[in-house]
Amino acid sequence: MSYPQETFLHTTLLPGSLVARRRAVVSSSTLSYQLDVLKETGRYDAFKLQWHPTYSHAAETWPVPKHLFWDSDVGKWIEGACYCLVDQPNVDIENAIKELVQMIRSAQQPDGYLNIHYTVVDPEKRFTNLRDMHELYNCGHLIEAALAHNHLYRNDDLLEPMLKYVDLLCRKFGPGADQIHGYPGHPEIEQALLRLHDRTQDPRHLELAQYFITERGNPNGVEGENYYVVEAKRRNEPPAMRPRAYPEPDSLWYCQAHKPIVEQETIEGHSVRAMYLLTAVADLVKSQNSPNHRLKEAAYRLWDNMVDRKMYVTGGIGAIKQWEGFGIDYFLPQGTDDGGCYSETCASIGTMMLAERILQYDLNRKFSDILELCLYNAVLTSMSHDGTKFTYVNQLASSEQDLSKREEWFTCACCPPNVLRLLGSIGGYIYTQARASEPSQAQINVHLFIPSTYQFQVDGQDATLTQKSNWPWEGRVAFELKTKSDQVNLALRVPGWAKSWKMSPPPPTETLQRGYLVLPATWLSSNPSFTLEIALTPRLIAPHPYTNQDTLTLARGPIVYCIEDVDNAWVQDHFKTVQLDPHCKIDEITVTDKDTNDAYVALKVIKGASLMNMDALHASPDARIEELDKATGADAKIIEELIFVPYYFRANRGGRGQMRVGLKRWNK
Amino acid sequence: MSYPQETFLHTTLLPGSLVARRRAVVSSSTLSYQLDVLKETGRYDAFKLQWHPTYSHAAETWPVPKHLFWDSDVGKWIEGACYCLVDQPNVDIENAIKELVQMIRSAQQPDGYLNIHYTVVDPEKRFTNLRDMHELYNCGHLIEAALAHNHLYRNDDLLEPMLKYVDLLCRKFGPGADQIHGYPGHPEIEQALLRLHDRTQDPRHLELAQYFITERGNPNGVEGENYYVVEAKRRNEPPAMRPRAYPEPDSLWYCQAHKPIVEQETIEGHSVRAMYLLTAVADLVKSQNSPNHRLKEAAYRLWDNMVDRKMYVTGGIGAIKQWEGFGIDYFLPQGTDDGGCYSETCASIGTMMLAERILQYDLNRKFSDILELCLYNAVLTSMSHDGTKFTYVNQLASSEQDLSKREEWFTCACCPPNVLRLLGSIGGYIYTQARASEPSQAQINVHLFIPSTYQFQVDGQDATLTQKSNWPWEGRVAFELKTKSDQVNLALRVPGWAKSWKMSPPPPTETLQRGYLVLPATWLSSNPSFTLEIALTPRLIAPHPYTNQDTLTLARGPIVYCIEDVDNAWVQDHFKTVQLDPHCKIDEITVTDKDTNDAYVALKVIKGASLMNMDALHASPDARIEELDKATGADAKIIEELIFVPYYFRANRGGRGQMRVGLKRWNK
Repeated sequence: MSYPQETFLHTTLLPGSLVARRRAVVSSSTLSYQLDVLKETGRYDAFKLQWHPTYSHAAETWPVPKHLFWDSDVGKWIEGACYCLVDQPNVDIENAIKELVQMIRSAQQPDGYLNIHYTVVDPEKRFTNLRDMHELYNCGHLIEAALAHNHLYRNDDLLEPMLKYVDLLCRKFGPGADQIHGYPGHPEIEQALLRLHDRTQDPRHLELAQYFITERGNPNGVEGENYYVVEAKRRNEPPAMRPRAYPEPDSLWYCQAHKPIVEQETIEGHSVRAMYLLTAVADLVKSQNSPNHRLKEAAYRLWDNMVDRKMYVTGGIGAIKQWEGFGIDYFLPQGTDDGGCYSETCASIGTMMLAERILQYDLNRKFSDILELCLYNAVLTSMSHDGTKFTYVNQLASSEQDLSKREEWFTCACCPPNVLRLLGSIGGYIYTQARASEPSQAQINVHLFIPSTYQFQVDGQDATLTQKSNWPWEGRVAFELKTKSDQVNLALRVPGWAKSWKMSPPPPTETLQRGYLVLPATWLSSNPSFTLEIALTPRLIAPHPYTNQDTLTLARGPIVYCIEDVDNAWVQDHFKTVQLDPHCKIDEITVTDKDTNDAYVALKVIKGASLMNMDALHASPDARIEELDKATGADAKIIEELIFVPYYFRANRGGRGQMRVGLKRWNK
Repeated sequence: MSYPQETFLHTTLLPGSLVARRRAVVSSSTLSYQLDVLKETGRYDAFKLQWHPTYSHAAETWPVPKHLFWDSDVGKWIEGACYCLVDQPNVDIENAIKELVQMIRSAQQPDGYLNIHYTVVDPEKRFTNLRDMHELYNCGHLIEAALAHNHLYRNDDLLEPMLKYVDLLCRKFGPGADQIHGYPGHPEIEQALLRLHDRTQDPRHLELAQYFITERGNPNGVEGENYYVVEAKRRNEPPAMRPRAYPEPDSLWYCQAHKPIVEQETIEGHSVRAMYLLTAVADLVKSQNSPNHRLKEAAYRLWDNMVDRKMYVTGGIGAIKQWEGFGIDYFLPQGTDDGGCYSETCASIGTMMLAERILQYDLNRKFSDILELCLYNAVLTSMSHDGTKFTYVNQLASSEQDLSKREEWFTCACCPPNVLRLLGSIGGYIYTQARASEPSQAQINVHLFIPSTYQFQVDGQDATLTQKSNWPWEGRVAFELKTKSDQVNLALRVPGWAKSWKMSPPPPTETLQRGYLVLPATWLSSNPSFTLEIALTPRLIAPHPYTNQDTLTLARGPIVYCIEDVDNAWVQDHFKTVQLDPHCKIDEITVTDKDTNDAYVALKVIKGASLMNMDALHASPDARIEELDKATGADAKIIEELIFVPYYFRANRGGRGQMRVGLKRWNK
């Protein structure tokens, strides 16, 4: 099995690209910045199992206390650090990892149990609230940390205690009469267990992952009822008592436990949970010798529902703040003033993981296009250029209530260390190696155009595939395959948004297979160097009419653009009244920002937009079309120049936090 | 003081108009239909204080049990019946009222307490959950029933027990150290007490109403906290336990108790509660000798916020189902598929009551335009032509989940008997009599054009004002004033939507005063007969751009139109993909429906609309404008003919329940 968390070791990012720069800043700054925060907030020392004042705070988001995720924050940081240390050694970081690992080991209970909250704060209540209390989620992240740690250091210092904890879980959870028939409210451990199984080949690890996945949402799990319903009764929770995230009683869809996954028709609830769960589902589908077709179909069905009807133009998912998740089909308001928009960073990282998993068994551009969309927009937008400020929510339009700006940290701090993990292992998302039709051959699939080299073995020979480009700003990608073997096949993704593309020398066929250009070994052996040139021209994206958003969004290649007050200082209303002409001319400007030293292509629209005259519009419910036509037409004021910058680059240059992605279409 | 519940006695509807027909069917059918339902469901006998099986049902909408409103259902039916019996005697109805009054009297406890639930089901808990349990709401409706009963029968059979109950309340509630510092979760008793005070002149009745209004939302009401917060603690309710309607903990805005009314900037929460509360506020403003300016301003501010930003084109209010109330500004989805729409019947009845109250001290078309809008659309749409089927929710677009259809009754049955009360007393909304500048003169304001006579006294003389028309289908209204006095002044509303109007003979001035045409006594005495002709031409209404609805709605005069599958049988998607040309030609067709015998003007658009080609649209997040343009433009299919009927008339002729008010604007 191959996982990006491991295959990234085969990939070396060439310096200078946008992604390489972001990964470099993670290594050089974010790691130590986050380590400081872990220390300052008490997370670092938490595995010492002493009382921390935070533990006494009331659970504002009942029943979840503030410190509930601390285990995972530490675990994710260790995991991300282990990925970055591979090519950027750092003694301070390594020492911290060592100390943390020792603390984690010492925090383990004699029976293998390992959790801060349920050891220090509430030791009598282990495994009594799987629905809300993130016990298994924390364990999952620590397993993933242990796998990364083991991979880097080739020792079992962290893996050993985790295996011991997993032993306990394998005894505790399962279909047996004396076992708990539950599953984690927040999926994560499923992915971790599947990766662990890949490493250990211990069948119990696969079985437990499979049990958590297939038992989930069983309507007759315990005593003829859903496990969570029975669990809540055992806690003597009155039915009217519900987690803060539940808009209504019994909102088990919040954690995708309202019915078995194979019966779920639409993607619902907390979007990070959904993505982590489906990533594990896709992994299980791939892992199984006799694939579970119903699980496979469920993953496709939920993917399609999500991408076609519940995904923002930035790759963000989750319209609803209260449950940090999905709304109804086509409900995609851009920001708080429009009725919502959450688009959590972790959710789009989860989408990338899910896409990567599916691409392992289904090479189809529809997955890699979304992988790239998420990376360059919803995910990269979540970290400042210098790697020390983050977003959790990534709305597409600011409002007075929710300005477009980044924070130093969060009480619930899942996102910042998730970016660390993702960028640390980003190389693993660029290429996948699949089983070739001939056993002696190699089949390399190229999903992303990030300047890099990929090293692999084929037919007993070393091989290196290199791609060089100024992606995402220029569309010319030069590939070079270096190997003595003539047994390498390639498949190159041609992005769905590409209006045109050409190869030099011309490929053997111009027909794409599910969006991939297939270059067979026979052709490659005589054409080891070639360029793919993808047209990168600005385009206008229009949301589906069912979204009720008559807006236009600028994009160029994989980059989605936004407009900010920094470049358009006159704005007072978060660009709510800006109208963009669908026939406007869009100029490209190459910029190197002097403060951040980030280079990018900005877009400029001259006299192609206008401001509605809101004074001419009275708001009462029976306004006439003539009035609206006047406000948006004759009375509208031409805007001399509008400047757009990449959405990921927003909030890097100060300003007042006014920003918008989709602008009203100007119906002239 | 004048209240429509009493002044309607001065008005006689001329038979044949839409409103007169609906009121007649209420008298002839609805009253006895609803009486049967009251009997079948247990409500009729509930004041016998026996156990009913329903009392054992679980509170699905915790903490509100199903039977909690039964007192009010009976009270509202009695009230409505008393209005209808004025001109349509009915022995069966009268006997039922007699029996109910006797049962209510016998249900009263020795100390005056009178409530079914807290006498039969939970006798130890009186006044311990004002927030949720509708105890004072029920009392308010019984007071209003008693006032109507007293007015009709000129006896105190029902008023006497209610006065005794109010005595108890006056002792229990108030600012005194030994009194409860609470107020009703669902306002209603405030209006009732103000009307009661008008009848009794007992200062305690005014004081209690005033206390409930001004104490509401006091952040330091009890022990330095909001009363409801303390009340919940006294009930030992864990903070995580919350009523079903509360999306989040502490959602006191649900019942407009998050802060004092005078500090509320926007209208929030349950829309019926908000309207009942503000009606009482407006009444209090009018009642007080030294008006409370802050209350007055609050009523205006909340009215403007509601009408300008939170009202549907039908006069409906409330976008959100969960709390049956207001969403954020400009969030006005048309139906479930668009993200919501509640528009409860009672809420628009409440809006009419509020508008009427304000018109008593502020003669301004902006209030009466909304009064008329609500009546002919959001309210009339809630009852079938034969008066036996009702809607509770009045969405502007149907969906598979929420078809456009009426029901026979509801578990929470506030709306059907509310229509009874409203239509029973509708005459009281047509005219108001204000203080004239000269004491000997009369000032009659005409707000609605419903064919009717209004009888009044002026300067010791009888006077009758008659208006005849075929409103709302024809705009010519013939007025005739008959009196020996020459001291009558009139003010006629000229609707804001009227493109043009003319009078014959010409009025002394064509200048409107805040939307009213003022006809002074001097002119009227020589022109006692005149006609006002208001142009009724179809028009297109466009919602505010901030609503993100690029739709067009057909209207003609006060009537808002919808499109139904009955007339447009090809529809399969609830008209989601119909696009209407803003320059379409709209034909008028006079129809007399053969089944219902209802006459109305239908509207027809020939080749002025098209169907988007949804096959040409893929739904993923990065669809190009070119694709949308094709689906809505070149590939769209012209619709030969679209038929529109009045929204109030929907769901009267069978069909599949597919309906829509606002159609996508066709951007050609």
